[in-house]
Amino acid sequence: MSDFTHWNEEGRPKMVDISQKDVTTRTAIAQSTIALSTKLYDAIQNGLIKKGDPLQVAQIAGIMAAKKTADIIPMCHPIILQGIDFTFNYQKSENGYDLIIQATIKCSGKTGVEMEALTAVSVAALTFYDMCKAVDKTMVIKETFLVQKTGGKSGDFFHK
Amino acid sequence: MSDFTHWNEEGRPKMVDISQKDVTTRTAIAQSTIALSTKLYDAIQNGLIKKGDPLQVAQIAGIMAAKKTADIIPMCHPIILQGIDFTFNYQKSENGYDLIIQATIKCSGKTGVEMEALTAVSVAALTFYDMCKAVDKTMVIKETFLVQKTGGKSGDFFHK
Amino acid sequence: MSDFTHWNEEGRPKMVDISQKDVTTRTAIAQSTIALSTKLYDAIQNGLIKKGDPLQVAQIAGIMAAKKTADIIPMCHPIILQGIDFTFNYQKSENGYDLIIQATIKCSGKTGVEMEALTAVSVAALTFYDMCKAVDKTMVIKETFLVQKTGGKSGDFFHK
Amino acid sequence: MSDFTHWNEEGRPKMVDISQKDVTTRTAIAQSTIALSTKLYDAIQNGLIKKGDPLQVAQIAGIMAAKKTADIIPMCHPIILQGIDFTFNYQKSENGYDLIIQATIKCSGKTGVEMEALTAVSVAALTFYDMCKAVDKTMVIKETFLVQKTGGKSGDFFHK
Amino acid sequence: MSDFTHWNEEGRPKMVDISQKDVTTRTAIAQSTIALSTKLYDAIQNGLIKKGDPLQVAQIAGIMAAKKTADIIPMCHPIILQGIDFTFNYQKSENGYDLIIQATIKCSGKTGVEMEALTAVSVAALTFYDMCKAVDKTMVIKETFLVQKTGGKSGDFFHK
Amino acid sequence: MSDFTHWNEEGRPKMVDISQKDVTTRTAIAQSTIALSTKLYDAIQNGLIKKGDPLQVAQIAGIMAAKKTADIIPMCHPIILQGIDFTFNYQKSENGYDLIIQATIKCSGKTGVEMEALTAVSVAALTFYDMCKAVDKTMVIKETFLVQKTGGKSGDFFHK
Repeated sequence: MSDFTHWNEEGRPKMVDISQKDVTTRTAIAQSTIALSTKLYDAIQNGLIKKGDPLQVAQIAGIMAAKKTADIIPMCHPIILQGIDFTFNYQKSENGYDLIIQATIKCSGKTGVEMEALTAVSVAALTFYDMCKAVDKTMVIKETFLVQKTGGKSGDFFHK
Repeated sequence: MSDFTHWNEEGRPKMVDISQKDVTTRTAIAQSTIALSTKLYDAIQNGLIKKGDPLQVAQIAGIMAAKKTADIIPMCHPIILQGIDFTFNYQKSENGYDLIIQATIKCSGKTGVEMEALTAVSVAALTFYDMCKAVDKTMVIKETFLVQKTGGKSGDFFHK
Repeated sequence: MSDFTHWNEEGRPKMVDISQKDVTTRTAIAQSTIALSTKLYDAIQNGLIKKGDPLQVAQIAGIMAAKKTADIIPMCHPIILQGIDFTFNYQKSENGYDLIIQATIKCSGKTGVEMEALTAVSVAALTFYDMCKAVDKTMVIKETFLVQKTGGKSGDFFHK
Repeated sequence: MSDFTHWNEEGRPKMVDISQKDVTTRTAIAQSTIALSTKLYDAIQNGLIKKGDPLQVAQIAGIMAAKKTADIIPMCHPIILQGIDFTFNYQKSENGYDLIIQATIKCSGKTGVEMEALTAVSVAALTFYDMCKAVDKTMVIKETFLVQKTGGKSGDFFHK
Repeated sequence: MSDFTHWNEEGRPKMVDISQKDVTTRTAIAQSTIALSTKLYDAIQNGLIKKGDPLQVAQIAGIMAAKKTADIIPMCHPIILQGIDFTFNYQKSENGYDLIIQATIKCSGKTGVEMEALTAVSVAALTFYDMCKAVDKTMVIKETFLVQKTGGKSGDFFHK
Repeated sequence: MSDFTHWNEEGRPKMVDISQKDVTTRTAIAQSTIALSTKLYDAIQNGLIKKGDPLQVAQIAGIMAAKKTADIIPMCHPIILQGIDFTFNYQKSENGYDLIIQATIKCSGKTGVEMEALTAVSVAALTFYDMCKAVDKTMVIKETFLVQKTGGKSGDFFHK
């Protein structure tokens, strides 16, 4: 199955040769959701962490992690990222609240930024957990997935 | 709410002072699950990636990421990890297969290794995604959570 | 001059052998000051960067850099930091405002955390510069120095 | 105030989207000064650190730090640096000597290298401090600032 | 001797200015050999490390290290690598077996990837040593050298 | 074969659990040799790189790499190094000169520093190559091996 491009003939992982691919503008959006209790949500909203905002720390951590993606994910190519931003939205859920985290990443290069976007939201979710775990360790990081990507030979991709 | 220990009086995040805490043996287990299609599962099982094994790459990436946790999660204390191992289990699901990833981490120190275990499984899941995404980009990383922790003043914790 | 402990007999830098030193509680406080124009100070105070706060980013960057000190300063020993916090104070100056940044670091180890504290305030100052340089590139980072250190065989030190 | 380009609408820091900017040749020069006592200056000049030269270590540390800038300063874009060099000059001061450190950095890219140059001189100064602090802990890092930058849409900049 | 391009007029190392060099396609192949005992070779071949394969770990470590070359070798320029693969071959030797490791790296840039290829094989050899040293610490890493490079103004190079 | 301690039951590499091991003083010495032509040796000795000294850069790079060992070698435990120094000796060889590089590392911990010493000399040799390759690309890094280690349950080890 030639689709497993990340493997060589001996079954060992390689960094795929992209030297012949075109430089195009590429974007990727990834999403992660973290489920929190009403108690924790209220504590955050009511300013019980004073002026502090866990989303600030989560966004900074996510951006810094996106820049480290090629150091974290073994076969990722180094990429010169050209822009990263996040949105955060709280939604009432059955048992409390869901915090929906989205990261959008842009670059122009020979390979896409899907892994960078997925790494960014994963680390943002882990950082939110870390900043709030003294109050509630039962938080669960729920669905983490690629929402969309554009650019590159394999074409655009939209989840679902 | 004094429980938000990661914040100082001005609402800015700090690295909590743990100098007065005791050195104890600490363990943490975290879990992440990745949903894959039957097509992708069959390709892996039928050896279509030849001798290659995405779980090898995922485990190595997860162990290396656990060692980088204090560099990835802003307020994490540096910790001298003393042992890390993973289990991987495939389970039939409604729409394909679930790969259940667990990491167990040990150390003796003044603070726990929950974030290290959560980072390890998150990066293992992201790496599995990266190694297989040429075949199927629709994989979703599902529940990521702390299964249990032992050791430390705040006592043991078991999910649910 | 035996005081130049960081050099070997051939005049090349070495990492000093501290294996015979005692583990003691050690603290260090370092300070850096950044001079900004009244125009920039007013923009920040009047909320012209909306809810954003450059001190949040500076503090997070400073804490993360302190953890990287042994990777940045060639002959520094790796140290397990146990607590870091910052204070920030604006003071009216002759030509605008001074932002006075102090970092306090704690550990128990065989060597001190002076370089970690100096690195923390330097990176916090550089980050403040980066977050505001689109408004004013003329900011100057003024005096950066070790305010005090305690613990260790060489005794306590207080600036001036 | 649209000039605070590093912040999004919610007041959280973002990595600015530079994908539409032109690739141009860019240079930056930054300067830092470190004040040292006559006693320390004499010890260095009289070869009391044998053949050793703290400026060698400072220059190497500064070049390596410049390459890490995007990992140290949270919102900095990764940049492919194309050349870095330093000058060091000792000058007699009122109370001893001033060591004036300048770093010049070149690249061709979509964003400038000001932060890289400032990081380079800051880390060179911190490293000089580290290599000599066993002799004299009272050294003070004095003015650190951007001397000039060229290239890019915002035009050239010269200090004062 | 102007050939020592990595040094400035004061005898301190600099990162060479490559801004005027052309972007060309560049490749490099490096080789390292590790000598192992018949006992260790047999243990690996007979599956005594069960399904485990030290070459998997060595290849992954070598690829990740190649991406870190500019962080490890002080005067190396950062480079955007575009493809890395390895070959491993065991050969009977006088006293046991030789494992011959070759890495091939591709990029298009202003400077070559010789140091990246040499770093890749060196780290692959060190990792093989680490994975097997519990069985046999007497392994010796033998000749490590640049096999060939193509591209760039200085022309192609072939060992011997 | 239980000696392959770095592998779990499924044949995947793990970070060995050392939590039950004793903290002891540990040392390791490793050696690497680089063969250089008479032309290159003479150029260095005759001061053709002015005041510059490739051994300075090699030693600094080796010390910094030793501190990164757990980040470079996948299954290495993080270790708090307590002292590192190098010796360099040139010896006349059949075809030119051999530069013999030795690194000595100390720590007190639950696991040894063999990989740190081997990484230190390997990176020192690679850095020497990088600093001189503009003059002569035919240098070969010859035998790299563990000279001795002391401390730890497995006892002392001396090469040959």
